[in-house]
Amino acid sequence: MEAMMAHKFINEIGPGETVDDIYLVREPILRSTSKGDLYIAMFLCDKTGQLSGRMWQATEAVYKALPKPGFVRVQGRSELYQNNLQIVVNNISVIDPSKIHIEDFLARTTKDVDQMFEEIKKLVARIKNPQLKALVDEFLADKELMKNFCTAPGGVKLHHDYIGGLLEHTHNMLRVAVAILPLYPDVQADLVLAGIFLHDIGKTEELSYDMAFSYTDSGQLIGHIVKSLLMVNQKAQQLLTRGMQVEQTVLDALSHIILSHHGEYEFGSPKLPATAEAFMVYYIDDLDAKINQVTSAIDKEPGDSDWTGWQNALGTKLYRKRVLEE
Amino acid sequence: MEAMMAHKFINEIGPGETVDDIYLVREPILRSTSKGDLYIAMFLCDKTGQLSGRMWQATEAVYKALPKPGFVRVQGRSELYQNNLQIVVNNISVIDPSKIHIEDFLARTTKDVDQMFEEIKKLVARIKNPQLKALVDEFLADKELMKNFCTAPGGVKLHHDYIGGLLEHTHNMLRVAVAILPLYPDVQADLVLAGIFLHDIGKTEELSYDMAFSYTDSGQLIGHIVKSLLMVNQKAQQLLTRGMQVEQTVLDALSHIILSHHGEYEFGSPKLPATAEAFMVYYIDDLDAKINQVTSAIDKEPGDSDWTGWQNALGTKLYRKRVLEE
Amino acid sequence: MEAMMAHKFINEIGPGETVDDIYLVREPILRSTSKGDLYIAMFLCDKTGQLSGRMWQATEAVYKALPKPGFVRVQGRSELYQNNLQIVVNNISVIDPSKIHIEDFLARTTKDVDQMFEEIKKLVARIKNPQLKALVDEFLADKELMKNFCTAPGGVKLHHDYIGGLLEHTHNMLRVAVAILPLYPDVQADLVLAGIFLHDIGKTEELSYDMAFSYTDSGQLIGHIVKSLLMVNQKAQQLLTRGMQVEQTVLDALSHIILSHHGEYEFGSPKLPATAEAFMVYYIDDLDAKINQVTSAIDKEPGDSDWTGWQNALGTKLYRKRVLEE
Amino acid sequence: MEAMMAHKFINEIGPGETVDDIYLVREPILRSTSKGDLYIAMFLCDKTGQLSGRMWQATEAVYKALPKPGFVRVQGRSELYQNNLQIVVNNISVIDPSKIHIEDFLARTTKDVDQMFEEIKKLVARIKNPQLKALVDEFLADKELMKNFCTAPGGVKLHHDYIGGLLEHTHNMLRVAVAILPLYPDVQADLVLAGIFLHDIGKTEELSYDMAFSYTDSGQLIGHIVKSLLMVNQKAQQLLTRGMQVEQTVLDALSHIILSHHGEYEFGSPKLPATAEAFMVYYIDDLDAKINQVTSAIDKEPGDSDWTGWQNALGTKLYRKRVLEE
Amino acid sequence: MEAMMAHKFINEIGPGETVDDIYLVREPILRSTSKGDLYIAMFLCDKTGQLSGRMWQATEAVYKALPKPGFVRVQGRSELYQNNLQIVVNNISVIDPSKIHIEDFLARTTKDVDQMFEEIKKLVARIKNPQLKALVDEFLADKELMKNFCTAPGGVKLHHDYIGGLLEHTHNMLRVAVAILPLYPDVQADLVLAGIFLHDIGKTEELSYDMAFSYTDSGQLIGHIVKSLLMVNQKAQQLLTRGMQVEQTVLDALSHIILSHHGEYEFGSPKLPATAEAFMVYYIDDLDAKINQVTSAIDKEPGDSDWTGWQNALGTKLYRKRVLEE
Amino acid sequence: MEAMMAHKFINEIGPGETVDDIYLVREPILRSTSKGDLYIAMFLCDKTGQLSGRMWQATEAVYKALPKPGFVRVQGRSELYQNNLQIVVNNISVIDPSKIHIEDFLARTTKDVDQMFEEIKKLVARIKNPQLKALVDEFLADKELMKNFCTAPGGVKLHHDYIGGLLEHTHNMLRVAVAILPLYPDVQADLVLAGIFLHDIGKTEELSYDMAFSYTDSGQLIGHIVKSLLMVNQKAQQLLTRGMQVEQTVLDALSHIILSHHGEYEFGSPKLPATAEAFMVYYIDDLDAKINQVTSAIDKEPGDSDWTGWQNALGTKLYRKRVLEE
Repeated sequence: MEAMMAHKFINEIGPGETVDDIYLVREPILRSTSKGDLYIAMFLCDKTGQLSGRMWQATEAVYKALPKPGFVRVQGRSELYQNNLQIVVNNISVIDPSKIHIEDFLARTTKDVDQMFEEIKKLVARIKNPQLKALVDEFLADKELMKNFCTAPGGVKLHHDYIGGLLEHTHNMLRVAVAILPLYPDVQADLVLAGIFLHDIGKTEELSYDMAFSYTDSGQLIGHIVKSLLMVNQKAQQLLTRGMQVEQTVLDALSHIILSHHGEYEFGSPKLPATAEAFMVYYIDDLDAKINQVTSAIDKEPGDSDWTGWQNALGTKLYRKRVLEE
Repeated sequence: MEAMMAHKFINEIGPGETVDDIYLVREPILRSTSKGDLYIAMFLCDKTGQLSGRMWQATEAVYKALPKPGFVRVQGRSELYQNNLQIVVNNISVIDPSKIHIEDFLARTTKDVDQMFEEIKKLVARIKNPQLKALVDEFLADKELMKNFCTAPGGVKLHHDYIGGLLEHTHNMLRVAVAILPLYPDVQADLVLAGIFLHDIGKTEELSYDMAFSYTDSGQLIGHIVKSLLMVNQKAQQLLTRGMQVEQTVLDALSHIILSHHGEYEFGSPKLPATAEAFMVYYIDDLDAKINQVTSAIDKEPGDSDWTGWQNALGTKLYRKRVLEE
Repeated sequence: MEAMMAHKFINEIGPGETVDDIYLVREPILRSTSKGDLYIAMFLCDKTGQLSGRMWQATEAVYKALPKPGFVRVQGRSELYQNNLQIVVNNISVIDPSKIHIEDFLARTTKDVDQMFEEIKKLVARIKNPQLKALVDEFLADKELMKNFCTAPGGVKLHHDYIGGLLEHTHNMLRVAVAILPLYPDVQADLVLAGIFLHDIGKTEELSYDMAFSYTDSGQLIGHIVKSLLMVNQKAQQLLTRGMQVEQTVLDALSHIILSHHGEYEFGSPKLPATAEAFMVYYIDDLDAKINQVTSAIDKEPGDSDWTGWQNALGTKLYRKRVLEE
Repeated sequence: MEAMMAHKFINEIGPGETVDDIYLVREPILRSTSKGDLYIAMFLCDKTGQLSGRMWQATEAVYKALPKPGFVRVQGRSELYQNNLQIVVNNISVIDPSKIHIEDFLARTTKDVDQMFEEIKKLVARIKNPQLKALVDEFLADKELMKNFCTAPGGVKLHHDYIGGLLEHTHNMLRVAVAILPLYPDVQADLVLAGIFLHDIGKTEELSYDMAFSYTDSGQLIGHIVKSLLMVNQKAQQLLTRGMQVEQTVLDALSHIILSHHGEYEFGSPKLPATAEAFMVYYIDDLDAKINQVTSAIDKEPGDSDWTGWQNALGTKLYRKRVLEE
Repeated sequence: MEAMMAHKFINEIGPGETVDDIYLVREPILRSTSKGDLYIAMFLCDKTGQLSGRMWQATEAVYKALPKPGFVRVQGRSELYQNNLQIVVNNISVIDPSKIHIEDFLARTTKDVDQMFEEIKKLVARIKNPQLKALVDEFLADKELMKNFCTAPGGVKLHHDYIGGLLEHTHNMLRVAVAILPLYPDVQADLVLAGIFLHDIGKTEELSYDMAFSYTDSGQLIGHIVKSLLMVNQKAQQLLTRGMQVEQTVLDALSHIILSHHGEYEFGSPKLPATAEAFMVYYIDDLDAKINQVTSAIDKEPGDSDWTGWQNALGTKLYRKRVLEE
Repeated sequence: MEAMMAHKFINEIGPGETVDDIYLVREPILRSTSKGDLYIAMFLCDKTGQLSGRMWQATEAVYKALPKPGFVRVQGRSELYQNNLQIVVNNISVIDPSKIHIEDFLARTTKDVDQMFEEIKKLVARIKNPQLKALVDEFLADKELMKNFCTAPGGVKLHHDYIGGLLEHTHNMLRVAVAILPLYPDVQADLVLAGIFLHDIGKTEELSYDMAFSYTDSGQLIGHIVKSLLMVNQKAQQLLTRGMQVEQTVLDALSHIILSHHGEYEFGSPKLPATAEAFMVYYIDDLDAKINQVTSAIDKEPGDSDWTGWQNALGTKLYRKRVLEE
């Protein structure tokens, strides 16, 4: 198989086709039939979806060699059951992750990552309060973290679910804030800007996004809201060791923004917004997330119906006719 | 009593003082004591609050002469019971509404009404779609309605609860929209601008605000969301009689924004947002209302505590320490 | 294929049968396999259900010629996958809608439509208040609307989901009202009768029911509650042009019944019932709808189990043993 | 004090009046001031409301002699604090319950109790199923229980909260059922009639209504729904000892109606309606209760405002203008 | 087929195998294809799961002979559709229930039933109050009931869903109570012990567990909470006929524990806990049920992932890594 | 005023008494009457409650000298309004906090603090896992924190609302855990013990309890759940600087217990329990808190009624008759 061969995406595979390509294998399980024959059930994935795979007449050695998860070359054939496809695998072999085209497996923001990150630096440079400025700079100076901040998705499914999504979401939120803060002079702008920059920073640890989008164990047990808070505290402690103290009142007000930015208890916020700054970050976050979610759902809908399918998270179908352009 | 005498506000009256001033009387009731003596129970109000009033040894003639509600000159004395005051009324006489200073009774926006209205006209002039433009112009051309639009409060209690509040709220929402629409190029700007301009227009009919803020019967039975929709339909029908048809799809998309702008069923929206434009108007409305509500609650709190009292509608106390200014 | 041939209903098709009959095609999509071959995925329906269809080796011309949705003659073969069937289509051709037996596609009330409508006219003729009478008569005089009123279903799925269902539901509700109004002398009967007659009139515009039951775009965006209200207002305005004014208080009380007849915010009512008349219409509506829903679910359940399957909308299974008849 | 003297009702007492009348004393507590003086705090009630009472310079003997609760002659004076009244008691003496006019203390249905009970007997005589008939007759034959059934209120506060209220509510529900059952031929009428007759029978044990309306201990711990069920089971067991068996399926279907008649878990129904009969009893119960609650709230509202005060249990104010009678 | 042949469990059957074994047939339905051929659709089950079965070319006689449900010998072949299996049945014959190994069909507690029951008797023997003791002994003396108590599952699906599960759950709850009661000296231990012993006793009547776990009709209509209460009342009445009266206050306090032990209205408790004893039983019940549910879900999860699948009833996935044992 | 004089508690003050004692002054506000006279409104408190105080003819100097809050000697007189008392203050002077008897102002556990703390140390000494042991020891070694841990209340109002309450609650929970852990062998005991010891440790920072029970600013903005987590992380980082690493998986599992121990999102837990250990801590916490809350409410209820007043947080009244002791 040549490197220049185009990847055949999961959602392009038709029934009864020969398959010979690289996919991500997930959750392989070794089972035995009642006759005692071993077989492997697995999922084969790329960024466009996943299919069930079955390797009949498997051996324990093959199973043990499989990454869980990881990239494999799959040779076999697609079979149609009902309206779904399944891949019957004849050969499976491990592929060095360095050899794959990661963009075949992980969706990616269509915007320029470097440019967005540069703009974010300019936007947060508006912060005047020396303590918040120092805190934000401490984050910016953490190269490893910033690399993850530029790479992490905004979520696993609902909105900004692609590489660079966290960056894009944060970037857009900061732009919205800068645009509307002059209209709300009572709101302490520095808190809003720092709050937006850091509100989802814990997603860098909550989410796993090297091969596919999922939750880390730690992310599943703790969640990004509390992870963000832990990171802010850790950076504040680092600053303190260098003689820069972020006062408790400032730290509390910033922490409160992070803890309350989902706006409701049932969305995982352990505190409800209790300051104008917390309300502003909550609404800008929700606005940006929902507009992204709506436009994504509309873009992804196949066919040319005026309505998308039912959107469980929104409690409605979405109307996508552009009524002003007829 | 001279016209130049300053009004003594309800929240300035202390215990044991002589009272001789103009107040709004509300819900007067004629009752009889067990000895058969008649007395009148009433509320006496201005824009700063209300007190119970009692006129002992009243007559049916005095009761019948009272406006229900209306302005009266009250002569009597304040008495303290527990921490509350009550006014014992000796004399009460009806005052011609034209003689009173309405600003003593109704709070008023601190901003310039004419200037805001001019700016609103400029902001909606950005609408390019000829049908929406015609519809908006039809509203702007309705002098009587626009006068009410410039006068109505944004609500009875929670936010923008003052004369001109609807205008101020609409004005600020339009400014927010214009500031952030460039960041969301997929959103149909004309629908958002028209939607914001008209989303609360029914409050001109829902609320009564000539002497105090309350609901009209019709407002209580129908609500401003549906009233706004009825007004939009009526204007569209007027246009049609003059040969300008607003297409049903355009009217539906605009109507949907109005119907869904409270975002949740339990807040009285009969439809959930199903377009990006509806989501945007919903969030801008909620953001602007909540920031106003938070800053008002913080401003109104007496004393210098760092926290306001419990805010029932928000499920929390509010923190008003300005942590960055210490 | 002869016109006298009985239609083979979707729920009668077994596996491995030859298919040659007229069905409603819905949501056809043209797709291409990875080899570049075009095929059409579609749903084929009649009133008893729908099946997936696949036409392999399709052309763009065939796809373009298909109605979306519309009636087609389908020639092919049924294939069983798992417990579901799929139809592999060899030939598909458009059929003139005038040639089909619409009753094969749309369920229909088992009652006499003309007789029910005549009875409704008699029942609302009990209204004595001249304004409400004029308003109701204005609706009765609208031939086109009354034709739709006699045809529309009561809903897409849950209750009275058949041609004539809206009429049957309204008819039964009026009969219940006339039966119990004498027991509640404080309730203003005219408002109840007019409220019932008009409470769901907007379903004529909310629902589409010429080929299958679904929502119109406008219905999905606005909903029948608000649509009913708009129609009532429109008719009242028409009356006004002829010199008959329905007073605002009467219109408001009637409108309130319509707006609050779902009884709870979460069921899409923007107002809660605030008059005895509104409560009465709410309960009669819910009673009649639920009894219809329960008896339908019981009738439709296959097999002879004493329990239906789980009813999601009711939060329970239904017990259908007739315990008194053993 | 003469027997022919009219009772001065609690809601007729004005400030600064001499009091000498019979009231119900509730929750008397003996307390001591910091100086060591004993005083008694108590509530003094009749059917129109209750006032706080204070007897200063009390003795333990006086306290011990007081019924808890019970009827007492009170001599003292009313004093006004804020807008509320308090009675300072100089003398208090126990009154033989046989001497009081119970109608001064307990509101009573305005309808004819005997006539309603006779009609109920006729309405349930329509039951044809011999088992249900025997069960209902077993209840009718229980003289003591039927006396309570004719006396108990329908509730403590919300609806039918007066002596005979349970009877009036049951009577009206049966009349509604008989009026509408012919319109729902699939519904098993006998189950509905027996279900209505017995649905609230446990209120005879849940509520205490000899001096004032309150809950019995047992009623508070168990509730009338489960109490009704226990009574039905007990009567069925009695029948069995005389050789008449109510089959388990019939008993279950009837029990299910009783258990589910509040319609929702959060209103204390441990089961949701799962038969057409259960739905019908639930709606008839709710309709009759709500109409009674609405008309009572409207009747009780003082003054002549078009709206009642806020009704917590309904989530709205009520509109009481009779719009058709202007 | 020999008795010594091992049963091939449903979850061991692979695709394309010959099947000849005993299974439980459930919900057989006779259907006819469009050609008029009869076939039987059915489910074939044992304790490890169920598969769809199809018998083509069936006759009405075969269908009539089938138990509904019951045990049958099935001869046929497994076929794979998608990832699921289906059994195509060639021969089916009824099997005498006495011949089957019931443990192939119903999961069973892994603990010693006799030993648990003996321990339960010792644990409730700690009850000192003579009335509660007599009541508990009345239950223990009911041999038939105690046999069912030792056999019934604790539930159909969520927790302790195996033969002996009710016993195991009650046993463990009693042990927890005895362990912690000394730490809560204000709690009346006798009520807690009797309450635990009897809180789910109605499950013996609510559930059917002779061939598979399901609800009885009566259980579905009434529920185990109310059934438990009815049984307690019945036993108390039996005691009364022998001269031992359980006082109403004691019976009410015990009944209240049973009625409120689900803790929330939405979980089917018609009363909320109102005594310390009721709270204790509620928490011990929930603790023991949830720990069982969690450990079962973790044990049943196939593969070696650190997380189980989504647990609908818990609103989360479960983490099963044993972090302390690495 | 002599030190040996007994404190007159707030709830012992009667009307018309001379007052000369030490109280806690809270929220003093300087106001001016309409005549321009200054007065101070304040609350005067001790552990038994609070009263309004008014100092007429005050000066700004007096106001400025007042602690906000703090201890003051108050000379004046009690006056009765309605049923409430108010203290008219003639003289007010600041008292050195070291001079007061703190137990007059803060309720205190009735148990032996030192003994409970010693027992806690023994109970957590059962932890075998070296990492968890090191972490717990790190907390035990923090003298300042442990002093607060022994002093802090368990809450402001609902349960364990007294000095030493946090200690008592943690102590009892550990004893419950040790008693029942042997019954649940699959549960990792070390995690449960460490989780209980630390689950509420953040209350030492969330609550203020030097003069009265209230929330700190930081506590109100962040909450004790997240504060506990921050403290655990800080201690783990301290350990790391000394070469002892608590593995991330262990830290995550412990953190998850803390974050999920309120069990439901609406009670402020940002995560739902996802391990058996988390479920166990949640139920032990809730059980111990509710039993304490129930027995406290029963103890505090004045009079000898069988029922307490309505308990808002429990949704019911509580029954306090000890039915087994009659």
